[in-house]
Amino acid sequence: MAILVMGHMNPDTDSIISAIAVADLLSKRGMEAKAVAQGEVTPESAFVLGKFGLTAPEVVTSVAGQKLWLVDTTDGAQLPADIKEAEVVGVTDHHKLGDVTTSNPLEMWVWPVGCCGTVIKAMYDFYGIEVPKGIAGGLLCAILSDTVMFKSVTTTPADKKAVAELAAIAGVADTTTVGMDMFKVKSAVDGASMESLVFRDYKDFDMNGNKVGIGQLEVIDLSMLDAVKEGLFAEIQKVKAGGRHSVFLLLTDIMKEGSEMLIVSDDPSVVKKAFGVEVAGKSVWLDGVMSRKKQVVPNFEKAFKG
Amino acid sequence: MAILVMGHMNPDTDSIISAIAVADLLSKRGMEAKAVAQGEVTPESAFVLGKFGLTAPEVVTSVAGQKLWLVDTTDGAQLPADIKEAEVVGVTDHHKLGDVTTSNPLEMWVWPVGCCGTVIKAMYDFYGIEVPKGIAGGLLCAILSDTVMFKSVTTTPADKKAVAELAAIAGVADTTTVGMDMFKVKSAVDGASMESLVFRDYKDFDMNGNKVGIGQLEVIDLSMLDAVKEGLFAEIQKVKAGGRHSVFLLLTDIMKEGSEMLIVSDDPSVVKKAFGVEVAGKSVWLDGVMSRKKQVVPNFEKAFKG
Repeated sequence: MAILVMGHMNPDTDSIISAIAVADLLSKRGMEAKAVAQGEVTPESAFVLGKFGLTAPEVVTSVAGQKLWLVDTTDGAQLPADIKEAEVVGVTDHHKLGDVTTSNPLEMWVWPVGCCGTVIKAMYDFYGIEVPKGIAGGLLCAILSDTVMFKSVTTTPADKKAVAELAAIAGVADTTTVGMDMFKVKSAVDGASMESLVFRDYKDFDMNGNKVGIGQLEVIDLSMLDAVKEGLFAEIQKVKAGGRHSVFLLLTDIMKEGSEMLIVSDDPSVVKKAFGVEVAGKSVWLDGVMSRKKQVVPNFEKAFKG
Repeated sequence: MAILVMGHMNPDTDSIISAIAVADLLSKRGMEAKAVAQGEVTPESAFVLGKFGLTAPEVVTSVAGQKLWLVDTTDGAQLPADIKEAEVVGVTDHHKLGDVTTSNPLEMWVWPVGCCGTVIKAMYDFYGIEVPKGIAGGLLCAILSDTVMFKSVTTTPADKKAVAELAAIAGVADTTTVGMDMFKVKSAVDGASMESLVFRDYKDFDMNGNKVGIGQLEVIDLSMLDAVKEGLFAEIQKVKAGGRHSVFLLLTDIMKEGSEMLIVSDDPSVVKKAFGVEVAGKSVWLDGVMSRKKQVVPNFEKAFKG
């Protein structure tokens, strides 16, 4: 039975490329493995796949009875509903440790770095296996995407080193140009539905018993979102109505290096508790905040506990 | 603030030596780190520490407000009661993934191998740091102990390779002699209280909502336990009375390669469900069963679910 290599719901480029890369690595270690994803790829991921000749993973949303290798998450809430009926045999991740447990010993590669892709590069090196050219290109884009071209506070020296080494393998002379091209695709909102924009990079969290959704849209200029901001707000109101305490949508300006956060909450005072800023209208500007994982989720977790 | 490197309750040689080794490795990576343990060392561990000039870790049983690196476990039930008030920044383990979660990204080295020591040897290699001679001796003993001198089904080629490499560093010419000396110390029961024998290597598990205790005594000849078997049975009856569904004590004969399991349970039929053997008296012989982690815990988890 092939090991299914799977990332989180609403897969981003890191989840997609990491699944492809780990499946390749496991195959070369002699295991039968196959990359899958919990949903269709984003325009950004489609751009990366196309640029480096990679194929989008098959969509799989039920995993009962399967062997799984998780990439980019260990949170049950971000995995298929029947995750407890699957056997997790491995994990590659760069997030906080979630609530997935196993019945058997497993292999885990988890580092506090900017991107799963950085961990996977180390796995290839550790096992003495060459990174294929196309996968190297995909991984370097995943790292540039997750670290917002090294501007995010999640960026570590290991991420920069991995990108430099992967660029050499992929034959990419100018990673900044590739990164900007990718973020231009990511920034494009024309023609996309409000729903698809909110869920482009959206995750639900359990915070002290409250269901909290946090989405993020990264653009190279916040003004690109002026025309859709009202629509996005109406859309997260709908999402909140599905049994959530709060839904936050981060509109991240990667050049200004900060985020406007749209807020719909049963108790908007959690935003003040989390970030020390007063909430007057529908949103606040959070200067320097670009990372959901490192700057937003931990602050909200503390605020919901207190 | 120093990172405390800590193993599970009732620390075995792997937990003790792994804490010492990881603290050494983290220090050499530029972090402040200190090995600690949740209890006094066993006679076996004392033998290993003495033989290789290592010092027993300080006993620490409360960790609120501390930074922790866990070795040899990720199970909350095997950690201090205030574990949720500590920040887990790293994990080195070779068990199933337990219920510890974190609020921040962390570093995890988890492999499905026979011993944490094997993973730690790879960590030293990965970071290009030399294993100190004394720690190499300790790690090789930890691996020989956990794998029962490579007789346990948990043994992997990686464990054997690590022992060979560590023996060269430690200057140990004959690992079999060191292993037998260690297991002779471990086998000695003269003068030990029944309580200390039951808890020498004991763990509580949550199995489908039931608290289940499983202890293990490894001896080089089961007949060494004839004089204490009744006393051990009386002792696990006491342990069970402390709110447990079942307590099982594995008396493992490392030369015969099997275990006699003493049984006290609200529902002894779980033993038949788990191992397919009829329970007539106070114990059963489980041929070939030497590993609690790989042969006993998974079988009981299935039996308690069904």
